[in-house]
Amino acid sequence: MKKETTRSDELFLRATKVVPGGIYGHVAPAGGLPEVFPHYAESGKGCRFRDVDGKEWIDFLCGYGSSLLGYADPEVDEAAERQRRDGSVLNQPTERMVELAEALTDRIDFAQWAVFAKNGSDVTTWATRVAREHTGRSLVVKAKGAYHGVDAWCDPGFGGRIAEDRAAVREFVWNDLDGLTQLVEEEGEDIAALILTPYHHAAFGASEMPADGFWTGVEDLCREQGIVLVLDDVRAGFRLHEGGSHRHFGFTPDLSCYSKALGNGYAISACAGREEYRRAAREVFLTGSCWNDAVSMAAALKCIEIAKRENVVERLDLLGRRLEDGLQSQAKAHGYSFALTGPPSMPFPWFEEDDNLYAVQRFCGFCAEEGVFFHPHHNWFLCGAHAEADIDEAVEVAGRAFARMAQEKD
Amino acid sequence: MKKETTRSDELFLRATKVVPGGIYGHVAPAGGLPEVFPHYAESGKGCRFRDVDGKEWIDFLCGYGSSLLGYADPEVDEAAERQRRDGSVLNQPTERMVELAEALTDRIDFAQWAVFAKNGSDVTTWATRVAREHTGRSLVVKAKGAYHGVDAWCDPGFGGRIAEDRAAVREFVWNDLDGLTQLVEEEGEDIAALILTPYHHAAFGASEMPADGFWTGVEDLCREQGIVLVLDDVRAGFRLHEGGSHRHFGFTPDLSCYSKALGNGYAISACAGREEYRRAAREVFLTGSCWNDAVSMAAALKCIEIAKRENVVERLDLLGRRLEDGLQSQAKAHGYSFALTGPPSMPFPWFEEDDNLYAVQRFCGFCAEEGVFFHPHHNWFLCGAHAEADIDEAVEVAGRAFARMAQEKD
Repeated sequence: MKKETTRSDELFLRATKVVPGGIYGHVAPAGGLPEVFPHYAESGKGCRFRDVDGKEWIDFLCGYGSSLLGYADPEVDEAAERQRRDGSVLNQPTERMVELAEALTDRIDFAQWAVFAKNGSDVTTWATRVAREHTGRSLVVKAKGAYHGVDAWCDPGFGGRIAEDRAAVREFVWNDLDGLTQLVEEEGEDIAALILTPYHHAAFGASEMPADGFWTGVEDLCREQGIVLVLDDVRAGFRLHEGGSHRHFGFTPDLSCYSKALGNGYAISACAGREEYRRAAREVFLTGSCWNDAVSMAAALKCIEIAKRENVVERLDLLGRRLEDGLQSQAKAHGYSFALTGPPSMPFPWFEEDDNLYAVQRFCGFCAEEGVFFHPHHNWFLCGAHAEADIDEAVEVAGRAFARMAQEKD
Repeated sequence: MKKETTRSDELFLRATKVVPGGIYGHVAPAGGLPEVFPHYAESGKGCRFRDVDGKEWIDFLCGYGSSLLGYADPEVDEAAERQRRDGSVLNQPTERMVELAEALTDRIDFAQWAVFAKNGSDVTTWATRVAREHTGRSLVVKAKGAYHGVDAWCDPGFGGRIAEDRAAVREFVWNDLDGLTQLVEEEGEDIAALILTPYHHAAFGASEMPADGFWTGVEDLCREQGIVLVLDDVRAGFRLHEGGSHRHFGFTPDLSCYSKALGNGYAISACAGREEYRRAAREVFLTGSCWNDAVSMAAALKCIEIAKRENVVERLDLLGRRLEDGLQSQAKAHGYSFALTGPPSMPFPWFEEDDNLYAVQRFCGFCAEEGVFFHPHHNWFLCGAHAEADIDEAVEVAGRAFARMAQEKD
């Protein structure tokens, strides 16, 4: 439906020559965003970004969650730049590593230690290995459809896997405590780890919050059977609670994994753990060429400081509720049964009777035409740089989108 | 033998409280560096760094190879900083991704495409999966003792592994073409990938260059049996040849992996491949929270430009030979049979009849006392910021170290 070739299209054509598929991973066009969404970004600041065609967007994806405070936060960037002048990847770690481990163990109630890496996957996979080392068992249990990273034991793709990759993985349906109980009864003595996100935030489906008693049940099962409870807080971490998402839902994991919000756009991930897993953590090799990159650690330290000082968690919740209320009333006004599922600060859009996702694609496409970036099948993110006025502007655009949808139906 | 508690020791004690083992990975004290080596670095510039006790070092490890041009290269840092102001991790990749893929496919003769990640391990493991996807086979063959990263199929640690992790991995002895031929005869139809470093640079042992005919033999075996030849050029890449280490040794891989020298201290890795693997590359999921970080890509682009302009590869070779000649003559003068093995720009020190590594530990320890960072059991690295005067200063220190060793023997 586009009239002319955009710079985004041109770049994509250039890219297809030198990158398999032109763009890979979770933002690949194969993921099925409406055509109006751009393939390439030019720049970002706060809650807005500019695409390569010069169009400005109010963003509700925030670098898939890596921007907690806003793109190019001046204080974080200044702390990073100061560290850069001293050095980033040297032969040894710097004091930043010690400070960051102290900050995380201070912030995360159950954690007595922390380690750092680059990707979320680095630490989710490592945590399952720590559980194996600790228990001497082999099985890992996860929820069906849950994303825990790019490694072969759990990746959502289909390519390049062999039978051995998942021979030691078991799945149950999120919130189905009976199913999980049965699994534990059958194979509990072989289960090393149960890895779970704090709530179920699978793509292409409404987010599911934990049912009443789910987390208590999970904790009881794990403690009874000596199963290591691993929290994959890579996506939600530090957005729902300053001390980690387990605090928001009221449970205690054994190990927890963080990444996105931790570095505010600087690549860093972390696993934090309880004292009793320290020995196992020492035994499972963990390293990478740039693992002791002091710049990302300086950024993370500053990000933690700002998030606390500015009450970012509370602010994101308020902003999320404002967005939810605004969209709900616009939807109602135009006769749509529409909901934001999941936590207010990380909402996932859902239309009633929209199994083929046509309505949500249409809605997000119309909003995108007016420069509001609502993703149709991945949860959205609020960030500290969103102002009330940004939310209100987006809600206004959404109102026009609902109106156009209603008009099409007539 | 230390007289007083250093700041390095103090920091280490602080770290042991919040990080398992205090420091983990390849720089952990468990790795066995002489006590005079510091645990923490303060800052780095060019070929020198300062530790947390204020001592300045002439460095011959260069961030384990991540510094190709020198720490905090002003041009690379400026390019990165310019990109940072525009944006780093956004929702989409930026034009930098396309430019970098173009630069790599231009630079690497056999490569028609490239993808990017953060760690060397990200791409070595992914490459084996691409080979599996392409061939429909499961086995991966590697050389005994070769390091290909942190993942369970190949990591050098012992913890957290289950039998399935290595069920599909086979090993042969580096340079033993007969052994490899036999392996291929026995299981060739099930072998998806042969992954090799360009020469054998295992820790705790002299580097081994490929024997005459080794690479030709390897290529023939792979082509005959339809095995994907994966070059792990993470450590050596762009230090031996501007177009990748296969050019230095005269062979052609199917896929090749890079990281350390690519970003000059900015975390980035890449896999480049031949056209026929493009389809498989699209099928194997690859992504990470910060995978499209434009800052590291801008740094890599600038690093490639400078390395070409300054003939860095040639310069490192010359500097390496100067170091080798200098150390050899100092060793000879004091009655030591000492060699630098491996390529001149990435030498590994070796004393005759030093199976317990006592002599090399002693030598590197004495040099360290005078602020020259020679690692006793990991290959060293030269960088573009080393000047002839730095080499000569290090050689002078080495002369005094050999003299002290000779004195001890008397």
